[in-house]
Amino acid sequence: MASGYLLLVADLIGVAVFAASGASAGVAKRLDLFGVAFVGFAAALGGGILRDLTIGAVPPLAFADWRYATTAVLASVAVFWLHPRLNRVRRAVLLLDAAGLGLFTATGTLKALHAGVPAVGACLLGMLTAIGGGLTRDLLTGEIPVVLQRDFYAIVALGGAILITVLDRLGVTGLVPLVTAAGLMTGVRLLALYRRWSAPVAVP
Amino acid sequence: MASGYLLLVADLIGVAVFAASGASAGVAKRLDLFGVAFVGFAAALGGGILRDLTIGAVPPLAFADWRYATTAVLASVAVFWLHPRLNRVRRAVLLLDAAGLGLFTATGTLKALHAGVPAVGACLLGMLTAIGGGLTRDLLTGEIPVVLQRDFYAIVALGGAILITVLDRLGVTGLVPLVTAAGLMTGVRLLALYRRWSAPVAVP
Amino acid sequence: MASGYLLLVADLIGVAVFAASGASAGVAKRLDLFGVAFVGFAAALGGGILRDLTIGAVPPLAFADWRYATTAVLASVAVFWLHPRLNRVRRAVLLLDAAGLGLFTATGTLKALHAGVPAVGACLLGMLTAIGGGLTRDLLTGEIPVVLQRDFYAIVALGGAILITVLDRLGVTGLVPLVTAAGLMTGVRLLALYRRWSAPVAVP
Repeated sequence: MASGYLLLVADLIGVAVFAASGASAGVAKRLDLFGVAFVGFAAALGGGILRDLTIGAVPPLAFADWRYATTAVLASVAVFWLHPRLNRVRRAVLLLDAAGLGLFTATGTLKALHAGVPAVGACLLGMLTAIGGGLTRDLLTGEIPVVLQRDFYAIVALGGAILITVLDRLGVTGLVPLVTAAGLMTGVRLLALYRRWSAPVAVP
Repeated sequence: MASGYLLLVADLIGVAVFAASGASAGVAKRLDLFGVAFVGFAAALGGGILRDLTIGAVPPLAFADWRYATTAVLASVAVFWLHPRLNRVRRAVLLLDAAGLGLFTATGTLKALHAGVPAVGACLLGMLTAIGGGLTRDLLTGEIPVVLQRDFYAIVALGGAILITVLDRLGVTGLVPLVTAAGLMTGVRLLALYRRWSAPVAVP
Repeated sequence: MASGYLLLVADLIGVAVFAASGASAGVAKRLDLFGVAFVGFAAALGGGILRDLTIGAVPPLAFADWRYATTAVLASVAVFWLHPRLNRVRRAVLLLDAAGLGLFTATGTLKALHAGVPAVGACLLGMLTAIGGGLTRDLLTGEIPVVLQRDFYAIVALGGAILITVLDRLGVTGLVPLVTAAGLMTGVRLLALYRRWSAPVAVP
């Protein structure tokens, strides 16, 4: 009960942070208030919608539970009004985004496994839950998705999804390993930011 | 029986108009005949396909009822051949597009409600039914979706979807309130065009 | 048994070829190793995922059978390392791509028919299975989909899908007509390449 409530709060924090990233991109592209809220919604919930459609969980959580859409829209509207002040909290946003990455990957992978998706597919879906929102945000604002170009982001999610799948197959379940794995991903992501890790690019 | 037939005819008129908007965008981007028909199909039926996938109605109506795809393709091919003459009927197209907005929102919201989607999700899905096609059209032709940038379009759909959900929850069902709500949206949309209403854009 | 195995091998060859086309586009856009693999995965499996979601086959084959994702990723990584040498095998790639077109259309159309999709919808879904991956590849790399602009590609798929649907409705089933239809599409596609056929573009 209490752990379910904690997970929901953590999930909604992830939604708010991802929505803020989407809304910031929308403001930068001079979208109107509706456009900013829409891109925020898509950035926060696009990955989860894709995951839910893929595992046959309809309607997706984003449409079935009003708290998700409401959180995403409120966070987006806040960015719309407050964005000039957001630069001051840029470090906090990066920290929360890393936390969202860990959490969305962890819950996405577990949902896929529990829906009966085999291990490889579940790892891919866990990663897609985390990066799908950012992909959608970039496509809606006319950019080649940044997650495909540089940065050590999706690889952290994929590694974390594999870890969670292995733990689940070994019978290690419950809140503690979930939070540990999410925390580990968050830590690696922050380390990657700090050390400026990046994946290789092909020689021309 | 007769009302079902009327609704189908109205729905197909909406499909034809939205297909024409997609086909026009395709012609402007110098796509070939297939591309024009494809973008027309996506503009007319993309929103409904998204809605049907989200509520688990598979295969979506666009693939289950041949009259939808056929109408979309015929309208697109007509635009391909006749587009130089379309400027003359531009006012008629805007009027029909406003009617399509009202009708697609109304039927989309009701379908979501009847599929058991909660109120907030049903409003979002009703709006997505109306704007999803235009979004797809713009993404396929390499544009940032116009519905996100300016114009008083999605907000009309969202307001109409809320109205329909409230009516449905109050037990007001049937063809008359549906058509009234669709007509109201069409009217507000035309007023917004005439008065050049627009949503706010964030200060830089 | 043996024919099922043959079909799987043929399907995986199609996946590898389409993944290679996606990965090449990713390398050309200077994506990192993850981005190249992701676009390769999307190009190889995006069409099939779209088809499976549309007919309600969840989770889609791309997530349910690890051999599909593994093949796509291995082919993409191979292109990442070997791409400077790919120009030398360009003719082989075009041949294999034409074979993939025929095969993906054939299997996609049949899957839709067997899932109970009516004839017109099944033809559209068969075509989408073949062109959906390329569409996704182009959207992810910021291009207007090439299949919409020129080239005699989607029309071959659509014609083949109609042929397969007619054969199926006439009771002609089994591996031989399937392979014949796929071979016919491959041949027409190669002829279209050789003769530089193209669909008409609207007069400005």
